[in-house]
Amino acid sequence: MDTIRTNVSKISGFPEFLPNVQIAMVRAMDLIRDTYESFGFLPIETPAVERAETLLSKGVSEKEVYGLRRMSAQEGENPDKDLALRFDLTVPLARYVAEHEHDLTFPFRRYQIQPVWRGERAQKGRFRQFYQCDIDVIGKDQLSLNNDAEIPVIIFQIFRRMGIGPFTIGVSNRKVLEALLRHAGLDDVSIGPAFAALDDLHKKGAEATRARLLECGIGERAVDELMTYVSKDFNSGDVIGRLKQMKINALFEEGVKELEYVVRTAPLHLPITRESLATPNALEMRDAFAASFRIDLSVIRGLDYYTGTIYETTLDNYPGVGSICSGGRYANLASLFTKTKLPGVGISIGLTRLASQLIEAGVLKAETSTVAQVLVTVQVPEEYQGYVAIANRLRVGDANGSIPAELYNESAPLKKQLTYAERKGFPVVIVANSEELSRDRVRVKNMKFRQEQEVTIPQLVSFVRQLLPEIP
Amino acid sequence: MDTIRTNVSKISGFPEFLPNVQIAMVRAMDLIRDTYESFGFLPIETPAVERAETLLSKGVSEKEVYGLRRMSAQEGENPDKDLALRFDLTVPLARYVAEHEHDLTFPFRRYQIQPVWRGERAQKGRFRQFYQCDIDVIGKDQLSLNNDAEIPVIIFQIFRRMGIGPFTIGVSNRKVLEALLRHAGLDDVSIGPAFAALDDLHKKGAEATRARLLECGIGERAVDELMTYVSKDFNSGDVIGRLKQMKINALFEEGVKELEYVVRTAPLHLPITRESLATPNALEMRDAFAASFRIDLSVIRGLDYYTGTIYETTLDNYPGVGSICSGGRYANLASLFTKTKLPGVGISIGLTRLASQLIEAGVLKAETSTVAQVLVTVQVPEEYQGYVAIANRLRVGDANGSIPAELYNESAPLKKQLTYAERKGFPVVIVANSEELSRDRVRVKNMKFRQEQEVTIPQLVSFVRQLLPEIP
Repeated sequence: MDTIRTNVSKISGFPEFLPNVQIAMVRAMDLIRDTYESFGFLPIETPAVERAETLLSKGVSEKEVYGLRRMSAQEGENPDKDLALRFDLTVPLARYVAEHEHDLTFPFRRYQIQPVWRGERAQKGRFRQFYQCDIDVIGKDQLSLNNDAEIPVIIFQIFRRMGIGPFTIGVSNRKVLEALLRHAGLDDVSIGPAFAALDDLHKKGAEATRARLLECGIGERAVDELMTYVSKDFNSGDVIGRLKQMKINALFEEGVKELEYVVRTAPLHLPITRESLATPNALEMRDAFAASFRIDLSVIRGLDYYTGTIYETTLDNYPGVGSICSGGRYANLASLFTKTKLPGVGISIGLTRLASQLIEAGVLKAETSTVAQVLVTVQVPEEYQGYVAIANRLRVGDANGSIPAELYNESAPLKKQLTYAERKGFPVVIVANSEELSRDRVRVKNMKFRQEQEVTIPQLVSFVRQLLPEIP
Repeated sequence: MDTIRTNVSKISGFPEFLPNVQIAMVRAMDLIRDTYESFGFLPIETPAVERAETLLSKGVSEKEVYGLRRMSAQEGENPDKDLALRFDLTVPLARYVAEHEHDLTFPFRRYQIQPVWRGERAQKGRFRQFYQCDIDVIGKDQLSLNNDAEIPVIIFQIFRRMGIGPFTIGVSNRKVLEALLRHAGLDDVSIGPAFAALDDLHKKGAEATRARLLECGIGERAVDELMTYVSKDFNSGDVIGRLKQMKINALFEEGVKELEYVVRTAPLHLPITRESLATPNALEMRDAFAASFRIDLSVIRGLDYYTGTIYETTLDNYPGVGSICSGGRYANLASLFTKTKLPGVGISIGLTRLASQLIEAGVLKAETSTVAQVLVTVQVPEEYQGYVAIANRLRVGDANGSIPAELYNESAPLKKQLTYAERKGFPVVIVANSEELSRDRVRVKNMKFRQEQEVTIPQLVSFVRQLLPEIP
């Protein structure tokens, strides 16, 4: 027996999943990708590694960035010291668009589903590697608000199809709140801390937020007013009507106008046609979207990057999970890399964190450890050829498509094969002995209802199909 | 205008693609994944990062491994010095199976499609980051040869569906060649260099190989004999018949027996049923497989790892590309991490290198920069709602499914929108002016044949569908 020499315990912050969870992750990623593609977004991937100067140009903390080194390098030397792992997909996108500017067609609609790395301190719920699923539309010099209006429907479709319960897509416009803060007397220096204070409202509560706003130098009355605008009351019912009655300044009016356009245009993008307009499905979808999508001036997101529309999505029943999808409009993607002005709008879904929390909360279920839905057992190893033929019969399928089937390749008692099927969660198992094979028949086991039926080989595909409601 | 501060030139060895190539990459990956899944393989992903001691345990060169460091770490200190980027998917698989041994069901069939990193010297064709697409079947204590027989069909299906021209899957068995080398008088010390010499045969030629074998201490006559066994002549026609007549030793007989079983069993796994047996498709597939799959004792692959069946796949018309898919049987996956004996068999496709070379050779074509097949243009921005409705009509589709459509969201002259469609390669473009919209009609442009036809909205989906032979 060999000696075990190496530590195999988990490395904190670098999650990996068993196959049943990984299957759920793959399905979620496929669903996200499919929705992104259906709105005309194109795939790109960028290398895990960027120049350190590219990554640090955004003013991110060095502490969070993983640099590379050759394992063989001597103390003090490092031939790859200029290379580091990306910590988000936005900086690489900016570099990519600047680098390939003349080969891309604008508006450039791209999606990117890749892991990022952050040198976080190891603690529960903090990941040092996690997937981001991003879309951005990048214009040259200008970009229509129609793109801002399309995005809430994309978010809606993804989480609706994911079946993770009720959620809310909050939308705001950076100009509206900035105008209100300017109006309250804040200047370029004090506006940053005030935004930060309001951004923490849901985490820290109203009292702490009031105190911090007062510290920013806003008078008591103006603080009261500001607190009203980010309150639940103000942000329900006819918010646009209320905002349109307010006279603040030109920036405010511009922000309200943009917000109104986005809110009014978004529902057009729901996949509803004139013919389907009055069907229960279409009505239900329209209502569900109306219930999920709403103006919320307390949606703020970070500090300087966003300049117009802002989105934030939360789960109604799991507020502790925090934002599951956020993003917004920015005036210029890549000012550090190119002179071309590249306005854009985008969102990001942090899939690893979302999936982990949904699994923990029992919302996302990881039930089976199998992709193929049918296991063909091999009761009589000498008749292997007959069992292969059954698996082939399923894989070839019929006009309705193929049925993925796994063949049990080992020599093992049938009982062990059935245990294997149970453990992996196969819904359907095929069994046959020599006598049955000679009569061109098999037994089809419905594992869920513990029923069994004998069917002929020609009947097999259609019989199995009706046992499997949805074949991926 | 902002100042440009940062270098955006390429980092050598870290490839990234424009969307048209990335679309081809995504399709290739989907095809590989789909084939793997249809044979019952389950997805796993492991973190990019492993403990350095795990990675280096295989005896790999430190030079090739990228370690991590925090960018903020002071000279000489490195809190993450025990972390490094994986250089293949086999070591992480061994660690994964050992770590999760009690939660996995054996035989464990897993696929894994992820990038790996190697600290190569920068030079043409050398990638420092590239995708590997691996499958392995891992048994506990034992694993049937049926798995070895299934793998050639998996390789065959992937490259056949990829449409990359004729290819050859060479199969050998490590025991056969080892027995021949032992028979020629080599011992445990000299057998390694002899394997290495034979492994280089196709790269270095027969003369150089002969010379190296002589250096290993094999007599001239034995070298002549060995060179016969790895020759083209010996490896054509009835190789098994020829091998079975040879009396060498017990190891040789075992290897030949295994090889025969794999070669005879493999064709059973082709997706052909009794009903389809005599159809032209089935006959063509059977012939194509017979032509692609053959014994080749000059297939060797590495040194110590493989212990039985070995595979190597090459493109008939592009021998310079080298092996595009290789792998084999090993006696024990994870002896460094667990006491459980885990025999396995697997293959790996180096997709990044393969795709790059196929694109360079013109075999893989990257034609369009679009996933959605239809662009709905917006000729009259005031009628935006009407154009959104057309896009929705296509996306909702009919009983045959949805048609992904992109909406041109900007205000731009129609001519500019058509240029956008050309540049991205949309096969179908929808155009309508106000008068046409009011009559519920649109013009459908077939971009390939430069034809245009007016159709009514109710006709739209079926008309567009017949213009698009295959919707992904």
